[in-house]
Amino acid sequence: MEKIRIGIAGLGRLGKHHAGNLAFRVKGAELVAACSIVDAELDWARESLGVEHLFEDYERMLRSTQLDAVFLVTPTNRHPQQIMAALQAGRHVFCEKPLALTIAECEEVIGVAREHPDRVTAIGFVRRYDPGYAYAKRKIQAGAIGRPILFRAQTADMDETAAFQVEFSKSSGGVFLDASIHDMDLARWLLESEVQDVYCVGDCYVHAEFRRYDDADNATALYRLRNGAAASITVSRTAMHGHDTHAEVVGTKGSLVVGRPPRLVNVDICDEHGVRSECVPSFYERFEQAFLLEAQDFVRCVAEGCQPRCSLADAAEATRIAIATTTSYRRGERVVL
Amino acid sequence: MEKIRIGIAGLGRLGKHHAGNLAFRVKGAELVAACSIVDAELDWARESLGVEHLFEDYERMLRSTQLDAVFLVTPTNRHPQQIMAALQAGRHVFCEKPLALTIAECEEVIGVAREHPDRVTAIGFVRRYDPGYAYAKRKIQAGAIGRPILFRAQTADMDETAAFQVEFSKSSGGVFLDASIHDMDLARWLLESEVQDVYCVGDCYVHAEFRRYDDADNATALYRLRNGAAASITVSRTAMHGHDTHAEVVGTKGSLVVGRPPRLVNVDICDEHGVRSECVPSFYERFEQAFLLEAQDFVRCVAEGCQPRCSLADAAEATRIAIATTTSYRRGERVVL
Amino acid sequence: MEKIRIGIAGLGRLGKHHAGNLAFRVKGAELVAACSIVDAELDWARESLGVEHLFEDYERMLRSTQLDAVFLVTPTNRHPQQIMAALQAGRHVFCEKPLALTIAECEEVIGVAREHPDRVTAIGFVRRYDPGYAYAKRKIQAGAIGRPILFRAQTADMDETAAFQVEFSKSSGGVFLDASIHDMDLARWLLESEVQDVYCVGDCYVHAEFRRYDDADNATALYRLRNGAAASITVSRTAMHGHDTHAEVVGTKGSLVVGRPPRLVNVDICDEHGVRSECVPSFYERFEQAFLLEAQDFVRCVAEGCQPRCSLADAAEATRIAIATTTSYRRGERVVL
Amino acid sequence: MEKIRIGIAGLGRLGKHHAGNLAFRVKGAELVAACSIVDAELDWARESLGVEHLFEDYERMLRSTQLDAVFLVTPTNRHPQQIMAALQAGRHVFCEKPLALTIAECEEVIGVAREHPDRVTAIGFVRRYDPGYAYAKRKIQAGAIGRPILFRAQTADMDETAAFQVEFSKSSGGVFLDASIHDMDLARWLLESEVQDVYCVGDCYVHAEFRRYDDADNATALYRLRNGAAASITVSRTAMHGHDTHAEVVGTKGSLVVGRPPRLVNVDICDEHGVRSECVPSFYERFEQAFLLEAQDFVRCVAEGCQPRCSLADAAEATRIAIATTTSYRRGERVVL
Repeated sequence: MEKIRIGIAGLGRLGKHHAGNLAFRVKGAELVAACSIVDAELDWARESLGVEHLFEDYERMLRSTQLDAVFLVTPTNRHPQQIMAALQAGRHVFCEKPLALTIAECEEVIGVAREHPDRVTAIGFVRRYDPGYAYAKRKIQAGAIGRPILFRAQTADMDETAAFQVEFSKSSGGVFLDASIHDMDLARWLLESEVQDVYCVGDCYVHAEFRRYDDADNATALYRLRNGAAASITVSRTAMHGHDTHAEVVGTKGSLVVGRPPRLVNVDICDEHGVRSECVPSFYERFEQAFLLEAQDFVRCVAEGCQPRCSLADAAEATRIAIATTTSYRRGERVVL
Repeated sequence: MEKIRIGIAGLGRLGKHHAGNLAFRVKGAELVAACSIVDAELDWARESLGVEHLFEDYERMLRSTQLDAVFLVTPTNRHPQQIMAALQAGRHVFCEKPLALTIAECEEVIGVAREHPDRVTAIGFVRRYDPGYAYAKRKIQAGAIGRPILFRAQTADMDETAAFQVEFSKSSGGVFLDASIHDMDLARWLLESEVQDVYCVGDCYVHAEFRRYDDADNATALYRLRNGAAASITVSRTAMHGHDTHAEVVGTKGSLVVGRPPRLVNVDICDEHGVRSECVPSFYERFEQAFLLEAQDFVRCVAEGCQPRCSLADAAEATRIAIATTTSYRRGERVVL
Repeated sequence: MEKIRIGIAGLGRLGKHHAGNLAFRVKGAELVAACSIVDAELDWARESLGVEHLFEDYERMLRSTQLDAVFLVTPTNRHPQQIMAALQAGRHVFCEKPLALTIAECEEVIGVAREHPDRVTAIGFVRRYDPGYAYAKRKIQAGAIGRPILFRAQTADMDETAAFQVEFSKSSGGVFLDASIHDMDLARWLLESEVQDVYCVGDCYVHAEFRRYDDADNATALYRLRNGAAASITVSRTAMHGHDTHAEVVGTKGSLVVGRPPRLVNVDICDEHGVRSECVPSFYERFEQAFLLEAQDFVRCVAEGCQPRCSLADAAEATRIAIATTTSYRRGERVVL
Repeated sequence: MEKIRIGIAGLGRLGKHHAGNLAFRVKGAELVAACSIVDAELDWARESLGVEHLFEDYERMLRSTQLDAVFLVTPTNRHPQQIMAALQAGRHVFCEKPLALTIAECEEVIGVAREHPDRVTAIGFVRRYDPGYAYAKRKIQAGAIGRPILFRAQTADMDETAAFQVEFSKSSGGVFLDASIHDMDLARWLLESEVQDVYCVGDCYVHAEFRRYDDADNATALYRLRNGAAASITVSRTAMHGHDTHAEVVGTKGSLVVGRPPRLVNVDICDEHGVRSECVPSFYERFEQAFLLEAQDFVRCVAEGCQPRCSLADAAEATRIAIATTTSYRRGERVVL
């Protein structure tokens, strides 16, 4: 049982999370290298994870002979170049979503990937690995709700993260490309069709600072899919109770509700506030298990020589929908894809 | 304590429900007359409720000297004329929603009502009296969730009622005027603003028969309100688990979820299907208490000489939104009101 | 449709609740008389309910020729004499639980009732009329959970009522006779067997004042029934979140959970405390519908000449169990009935 | 970072589960040896986990020079001897609960452990590591519910496991020593006191085969603790809906409910059965995360030279309570410890 040797680029909060999984919890994986421009992060990788090969420069890490694969947890605008460089260096690639901020870049990456069909290229649409969403997918495939006709979802971050989000908005592409994109991917995956048009309503209701980037703090978009199904996707950056990500899939024979309520742990508290549950504070807690399953599946794909459940074409389509949604939000009009 | 003497017109299922409330459960009310073109219904009113004055003709009931008020539970296309006739006969009026199928008729009724300012004119937007929605309204007014920015709601009837609904679609004005209109009224009431535009996506996914009337069996509409808030309203005629009417109001400081899950009774069953709750089969069970509170409030308004919480202008606006939604559904385009 | 003419004795908070139901919400009933030693209560009955015949003396009310039935909402120690006097005066009787504080008195009442078999004698074990418990009973009768083998229940009052409860403890017979007795009745009703022995553990954990009456503020009792089934019943007077009364019935083929959580209204609040529901503050809100159904059933029994679902023998047995539980609590030993 | 080298004894279903955790998911651990009398199990260990040193004889594994610690997932009656042998061989020990079937054996083990104070000895009371129960413990320690006064818990296995349980009953010591013992440990841990007496009611309601071993298929026990608190513990082997293990801790200022409902995944299904959740089928799924956290904590204790949160004395006390409960069940009397 030879291990897949992996190098990670980007050791911010999510990067650290991935690195910890790769170092200790993914059978068949070995985290052998890490790359960051922050010295403290490299120190952390060496000391906490025992990573041997540390780099400040991504290209140098790629050229290091020891690697089978790279994990990219870097800013979105670096994704396309870094993915292509990795493929050209013969590495398998896992890259956090979104694939890119423009369609042109998505297509460029797809072109390069086509030249390296034996390399695994995974984009981190982590919710496909969440036990809840994956269970819904299996139920739908088994016919439990008939034909899916409506996807209704929400991704909501806590208001206390908003200051960070404003700063992040500069490079993230905005709330639709950064957060809603997960639900857009799920809509396609669960409704099994492509988005045809979108109408989006939202605003900076709480944090005017998002206007600087023509971004929203709360918005809801309604989509028509080519097979006639509908999707309604809400995104929020001002939730008070927790990170509240949930979805419903309505079919002709029943419906499924995923992720409600967003309990931190399976405990109810009865006190002067009534009967209540504390909620997960962020997507780290909400998708902790999914991040692990996602990394395990990537390693399995590399080992077995197959591609993961979310293709590059899927990732490109999600970007396309997110851009159209952003346009609709900004113009106040329906946008046809 | 003199009682308000009431005559009811229309003794179908909902009419019977109202009649039973007026006869036995509304303090200060006396059901003295009933009007129906179905003999068996009049027999029922006499035998089960002890109603003395029975009529086949609405105009004759209006002229009978004993009445203070009428309750109209008749087909929608009769509402405008019957309301106006009642007002002109000096009666207070309670009429089931919707007020009318056209804006012109709504305005005509409003004009006549303006000439009878001392008569109470109530339109049965019953959800405003539901303990759940009313509790949400009070919480919002108390500032519990800050400024409301999103209303997300659903009205879903059971699939087993669809055959009836198809038949009913002929005269009801379709699913938006008949069912969604409640949520449109709630959106305005809870978001405290007017609808500016709408985009609606839906289809006859299950019952092609609805196409005959250019009607839908499932649809979702997204609205922008003048104050910037959004509303997403889903309607369904194909629910398998029960009549599932619920809503969420998201505010800048918290959110409220009304009516989930739609439990028939506060009992969970643990058996081979898991942990489960049976659901209310129809809106009669779901809004049983609201129908009673609504009737009690009407009688109180008559007694105290005030108007109910939902005005004729509110009812007209709901019709306007429902018509715009129907147009958007049929054309597949955004419609500006 | 001749109405049953009823006189009510006792117009405290629960008495007022019953009186309001009888005056306005029970088809076939007419509240014609009221008895209280508090002038303000009689004034209230006349002004708010329009009761014509007012009495300070119970015996005089009984002798008034107009009555068909009496409703007793008086202190427990008066129940036996008042019931017997009513029967002897030819009146039907509804009396709040418990029937009496001693077995001897229970038997005396049963003896008198036997001499008046055509009089309806109902004891207010209101939970048998609660839609949740009644639904559980029907499910059990339909075989939905197989043979019931365990009843696990709780009655919890809010801590803020404790000061009142201490005062009330003087005459109520203590928490087992006053509150738990409902669950004892339910145990027999749902398990369809008699209690054989009991072991009770509890204390005055919060309010030492209850020790004055050898009473508890929290306790749990375990019962063995003659058919081998078990019952575990908890009682509390110190709940912080609301009046929390619930029960589970475990059968050989499934189980039922009644009344959890004790939501005030079907609304969830999402705010800085998490996802939460406010709870019913007292048994008035929790059993509002049950009190009405109970009164309606009493009137139906009188009209149809039948006895209600809870017999005097049932009520006596509940007292017997409550006394045994009190003994076990005080002695710290198992008590065989 | 030197790894703790571990040998596992027992590779039945739970043994395999532990082995997989130790092999791939516990940072700082290395599964180097496995012992089983079943050849296929040793093959599995080599092929699936890459375990190098395989033994049919426990004593030989102990003598192998490579081990730091052993994991015992063997029949209960072997626990005492195997723990003592391991300690005497200088190994740290993790052993599945219960520690032993008799008090004498418990004390013998404690005596030997006292002679090896630098060896970690952990007994697998896994629920102390479950995020739900651990969260409750922290809340209690933080004073969130005041002083705990009542622990009310249930452990229920699915009826479909009963045939296996009957067979297992021969050597397991019965349902109280095998299953309820977890809740007995939790009662002591969460109520912070010792059990004083117990009264237990139960029977073989469904599976008469358990009578062969004087065992029960359903039972409820009521305990009085020395600090005055109470505990009510139910155990069942006939649940239809899933493995349903939950608990409530009631305090003077609030209460906590852990593990309800026992959802398999955070998804609700709406279909012809109502609104429902599928449940975890067994304790493997319910406590999957706890088993991992438990193993991680054991390795941490070995690395840091400290003892785990559940001591041998705790484990012995749980056995004592389980034996007393068994006695009470069999005799139908209250038993004082």
